[in-house]
Amino acid sequence: MLSQLHDPHLRAFASDNYAGVHPELLAAIAVANGGHQTAYGEDVYTGRLQDVVRAHFGPTAEAHPVLTGTGANIVALQAMTPRWGAVLCAATSHLHTDEGVAPEAAARTKLIVVDSRDGKLTPEHIAAHASALGDEHRAQPSVVSITQATEPGTVYTPQETAAVSAAAHANGMTVHLDGARLANAAAALDVPLRALTTDAGVDVVTLGGTKNGMLFGEAVVVLDPAAVDGLAFVRKTSAQLASKMRFVSAQFIELLGSDLWLRNARHANAMAGLLAERVRRLPGVEIVRPVQANAVFAVLPREVTTRLQKRFNFYTRDERTGEVRWMCSFDTTPDDVETFVRAIAEELGVQGSDHEGGQQ
Amino acid sequence: MLSQLHDPHLRAFASDNYAGVHPELLAAIAVANGGHQTAYGEDVYTGRLQDVVRAHFGPTAEAHPVLTGTGANIVALQAMTPRWGAVLCAATSHLHTDEGVAPEAAARTKLIVVDSRDGKLTPEHIAAHASALGDEHRAQPSVVSITQATEPGTVYTPQETAAVSAAAHANGMTVHLDGARLANAAAALDVPLRALTTDAGVDVVTLGGTKNGMLFGEAVVVLDPAAVDGLAFVRKTSAQLASKMRFVSAQFIELLGSDLWLRNARHANAMAGLLAERVRRLPGVEIVRPVQANAVFAVLPREVTTRLQKRFNFYTRDERTGEVRWMCSFDTTPDDVETFVRAIAEELGVQGSDHEGGQQ
Amino acid sequence: MLSQLHDPHLRAFASDNYAGVHPELLAAIAVANGGHQTAYGEDVYTGRLQDVVRAHFGPTAEAHPVLTGTGANIVALQAMTPRWGAVLCAATSHLHTDEGVAPEAAARTKLIVVDSRDGKLTPEHIAAHASALGDEHRAQPSVVSITQATEPGTVYTPQETAAVSAAAHANGMTVHLDGARLANAAAALDVPLRALTTDAGVDVVTLGGTKNGMLFGEAVVVLDPAAVDGLAFVRKTSAQLASKMRFVSAQFIELLGSDLWLRNARHANAMAGLLAERVRRLPGVEIVRPVQANAVFAVLPREVTTRLQKRFNFYTRDERTGEVRWMCSFDTTPDDVETFVRAIAEELGVQGSDHEGGQQ
Amino acid sequence: MLSQLHDPHLRAFASDNYAGVHPELLAAIAVANGGHQTAYGEDVYTGRLQDVVRAHFGPTAEAHPVLTGTGANIVALQAMTPRWGAVLCAATSHLHTDEGVAPEAAARTKLIVVDSRDGKLTPEHIAAHASALGDEHRAQPSVVSITQATEPGTVYTPQETAAVSAAAHANGMTVHLDGARLANAAAALDVPLRALTTDAGVDVVTLGGTKNGMLFGEAVVVLDPAAVDGLAFVRKTSAQLASKMRFVSAQFIELLGSDLWLRNARHANAMAGLLAERVRRLPGVEIVRPVQANAVFAVLPREVTTRLQKRFNFYTRDERTGEVRWMCSFDTTPDDVETFVRAIAEELGVQGSDHEGGQQ
Repeated sequence: MLSQLHDPHLRAFASDNYAGVHPELLAAIAVANGGHQTAYGEDVYTGRLQDVVRAHFGPTAEAHPVLTGTGANIVALQAMTPRWGAVLCAATSHLHTDEGVAPEAAARTKLIVVDSRDGKLTPEHIAAHASALGDEHRAQPSVVSITQATEPGTVYTPQETAAVSAAAHANGMTVHLDGARLANAAAALDVPLRALTTDAGVDVVTLGGTKNGMLFGEAVVVLDPAAVDGLAFVRKTSAQLASKMRFVSAQFIELLGSDLWLRNARHANAMAGLLAERVRRLPGVEIVRPVQANAVFAVLPREVTTRLQKRFNFYTRDERTGEVRWMCSFDTTPDDVETFVRAIAEELGVQGSDHEGGQQ
Repeated sequence: MLSQLHDPHLRAFASDNYAGVHPELLAAIAVANGGHQTAYGEDVYTGRLQDVVRAHFGPTAEAHPVLTGTGANIVALQAMTPRWGAVLCAATSHLHTDEGVAPEAAARTKLIVVDSRDGKLTPEHIAAHASALGDEHRAQPSVVSITQATEPGTVYTPQETAAVSAAAHANGMTVHLDGARLANAAAALDVPLRALTTDAGVDVVTLGGTKNGMLFGEAVVVLDPAAVDGLAFVRKTSAQLASKMRFVSAQFIELLGSDLWLRNARHANAMAGLLAERVRRLPGVEIVRPVQANAVFAVLPREVTTRLQKRFNFYTRDERTGEVRWMCSFDTTPDDVETFVRAIAEELGVQGSDHEGGQQ
Repeated sequence: MLSQLHDPHLRAFASDNYAGVHPELLAAIAVANGGHQTAYGEDVYTGRLQDVVRAHFGPTAEAHPVLTGTGANIVALQAMTPRWGAVLCAATSHLHTDEGVAPEAAARTKLIVVDSRDGKLTPEHIAAHASALGDEHRAQPSVVSITQATEPGTVYTPQETAAVSAAAHANGMTVHLDGARLANAAAALDVPLRALTTDAGVDVVTLGGTKNGMLFGEAVVVLDPAAVDGLAFVRKTSAQLASKMRFVSAQFIELLGSDLWLRNARHANAMAGLLAERVRRLPGVEIVRPVQANAVFAVLPREVTTRLQKRFNFYTRDERTGEVRWMCSFDTTPDDVETFVRAIAEELGVQGSDHEGGQQ
Repeated sequence: MLSQLHDPHLRAFASDNYAGVHPELLAAIAVANGGHQTAYGEDVYTGRLQDVVRAHFGPTAEAHPVLTGTGANIVALQAMTPRWGAVLCAATSHLHTDEGVAPEAAARTKLIVVDSRDGKLTPEHIAAHASALGDEHRAQPSVVSITQATEPGTVYTPQETAAVSAAAHANGMTVHLDGARLANAAAALDVPLRALTTDAGVDVVTLGGTKNGMLFGEAVVVLDPAAVDGLAFVRKTSAQLASKMRFVSAQFIELLGSDLWLRNARHANAMAGLLAERVRRLPGVEIVRPVQANAVFAVLPREVTTRLQKRFNFYTRDERTGEVRWMCSFDTTPDDVETFVRAIAEELGVQGSDHEGGQQ
């Protein structure tokens, strides 16, 4: 019997996928276990998942479970773009910065990358690149890919999303939404998932499960079936077709069929809010981006960062500016936050009692 | 809370991945849960897995967990072949028949396909195709891929494997073993895993977890590090890098660090043996291939097959000959077998008491 | 000034692309020279070529000049197949045997290869593979590719071609014809080009220029525009868009706008016929395939082949059987044939006067 | 016989590949014609070309003729980068702006694009991106690609090139030089070709033929054989292997074996210089980039551009700023320049006699 090799009480602020699986989702896996179910998606749980997804995203929605976030993106993009198509995205996008050469070598598309301080695309970006359409010498932007919540921690409002979609559609492009943290965005704005997707003209969502508390699994959710072609085939070709798919689907049913998706996202957001609030009182740290979802971006002295990273796992986002990223997760506790803030204060040489004095 | 949507006591003979997860492996997942662990393979479980894998495959072995069988194959092949390389494999290979266009479109290689009744490659096959080497007009076979146990249910002996490896190496090719059912082959031959791999000159194994009882997860096990290049990068590019990798590794530790891999494989093989034994007594059914691992291939009248498939899930392998495949799994029970054999007898119009009479 | 480094009177029987350029085509290049013309196909010659091609292939035909035969094939196939599509072709096809891994790595498709002694596909082949359609685990045959004249030197009749097209279309597939030697087939059957293509249901032709006497250049000729998508974009992506395209188009205008294509093809065929007639009289050589276009396939003693290849360039087609291929070209002369036949006779140890005695 | 469909005396300023073929190169083609030569590069002209190329680039140089500029780039990059490699290049590079999705979909690499006003990369750019090396989540820059002369018309000095090469090599990257206009750069700097390539640490050059006066043909010139792998195979796979290669090689022998390459480049540069000199006198036009090779970049009123483009072919480079590009070619005459300048003056409403009057 496997002995536990790690400390299950240790949590840091590196990434929302450093967390494990939410107990309710592990329980759902156990419920789906036992007996035989047709592999590769013909099981009853994947069937039922369709109802759950339609309740959120509307009657045309179809959920195609896959295995990883990169996998979800490359399956969606291959189903959305012709062989010669290109994808317009922000320079901050996970697609561009964190997926190696997968978009190019696996999805065989070119990313047309747009600089954007807040990680958001706008109708102006789309208009500027639409001029390439029809010119065989230039990459053809056929899909606009936006991230929600964005990698720099901002959220698109429904109106901003709708404006992007309208501009894309007006130029014959379709809209892909990388929703690895869509739940966090919906929680932040206190709107239903469909307000940020179906109702805002998005065509295809890659819906995050792992960062929302699942053991494994994401889903490509098609909102407009006319925007994709051959999705089942490209999922298989991209090695994203799980044999025991029932266990991805069972988790998604549990997550989305209850309010667990929202509880997890709200909690992670709230912890980021708490962390930001505490950190703002510390001299020597500056929060450099709006805290809208579950990430806090801050600049602090490099030597402080170095010492702090020996005690807690987290990433430096920009070596030049010293900007760091602190992510909160569904399982981050207020105690974790306070412990971390105390450590920051210590490394900054600030008295903990001082900066929390106002609370007494 | 998710309600169970399926009958956990219903098992058929369609595929070993129609089964769920073995309870000991689900328990291992729970042990690895809680707290934060570095994502993408820097966790302690993936570290420990290296020891477990080396105990089986020898001191140079490295395990790279991935997510699906097709994923394991395309990662291995991309790390083994240059951009212009081709892969020699049997016409029966999963790679050729069941992975869509993944080898070509995702791994970007050409399969050079060899007809082989028993699913095995031989040194003669390799010699015949080596003549293309150096000719820029012809695909360059740079990897030989064999399956163990083969898709038609046979097993390569250590000697047969070593002969293939020797012929491949003599021609400057490396050897890939698709080991989705390697455990079943080792159980069938009653030899350790390394007798069929490391000791037989195999360079890279894709080691099956799912068909051996895991919830999800496979591993590319590199035996000769000189045979691969950039594996970490192609795993990422191929969307096979799991964020919460600890849960794949924990299962593999439990599976391979105990005798569970062997128990599961022996049981599945034994059930196939039992099924074959019972079926052989039935007039009107012919077992058409040697039963060496966990599959039984039989020919029976088409209308019998049609009626039987309404009661039990299984696949017709060849529409022309009427050959069907019956797979046994780690969770197949002797009762399942007897129930199925009774049904076959009924559909054949054979008296169950008659054909089993001899046993009384 | 470049000095001539080769003997312009030496011709052998290795391949129809060992020949140079026909003088009338070199003259056409000179006519198109001088002044500036828009690059990449917007020149007047490429415009005029459309009329010439439509006169042969019918009013919906569009010619897209490209640079190589492999290039023509991969452009056509990418425009014809979705990202997940596969191509049904004969095991003898140039696509499968002589284009390295271009169909897989460049066109990113899988070839589903069918054994065929005479190099022809039949409706039965198509029906046998259509069963894979819709199954995401199996490669999806979406295009049927036939070669005319085939690599083993046979020709499809208009009726045979129409039967293939009908079977393909009935199964939702389209038809690609690799016409590297389409002119030779038309000459052999004494039918117009459209009888073998447009009128026989072919959707896209890759039309050979080089083997028909051009300096360089081939064309993808689309007969049914509904069968392709984004051809201009995949031509560019595949590096087959010539900047000074006027020189490809001018040659095609000269070739197809006069009877030069037919003269060249008829001559090459006639020389193959003469060679076959002469060789048939020689004891010790057997012609093993029908001589329908410009190739002769023969079996002769291995040591004779070895000696003969020191005197004349030609290829052994099959090392096991000793089958050799002798190709005739637009510039092969009757004297070349007689000289070659004499050499064969000498190496066979047959008296030239004996075997030609009947002629006296 | 083809009639001439165009005016051979009309030349504009759109691109150096709007020109035809230089008469001396057409003569070289005729010299290489006649008789049979082994196809696909085993001919005597391609053999001789190696000597000619070594005389320019040094004793380790190997020339691999190909067909198009995009083809040359994708062959070179595939031979230089592993499957997971990326290419660092300037945002202005032809590779990024004018080759559709060929680098991504055909060469299957990611371009890491660097903004650069003058089109040049610097050691700082390389250092900034080297930090990604070893991180599987990020694209791995393995090749630095520079253009000479750059697309915005500047030239790298030997010292600048050497600095780029040193920085690349220090970070384990190799250096590719897109030399579509290398001759123009060498002419501009009055240095031999090797001063800008071999002697400056460049590993692989794609050497332009077409823009230097050839009918068709480019070459991948490998300077350091250790920097490439499998070039012959990727050339074939990329459909860049010409069957009648003798005609590419014969042109290159004529071009590089005499001073024709330099005459053509010097002339084109001189015409650009003349154009710039004349235009500088015109009020209402501003030359906005240094004129170093054969291009002139100018800004003039949009309505003037519109009227002028009805009379002469040329491209607008930037719709927002109104910047246009005027290219000179080997066949541009001083009269062409004067005629064009007069037209510009007319459209600007400037008296030709006025603005030139001062010179008398």
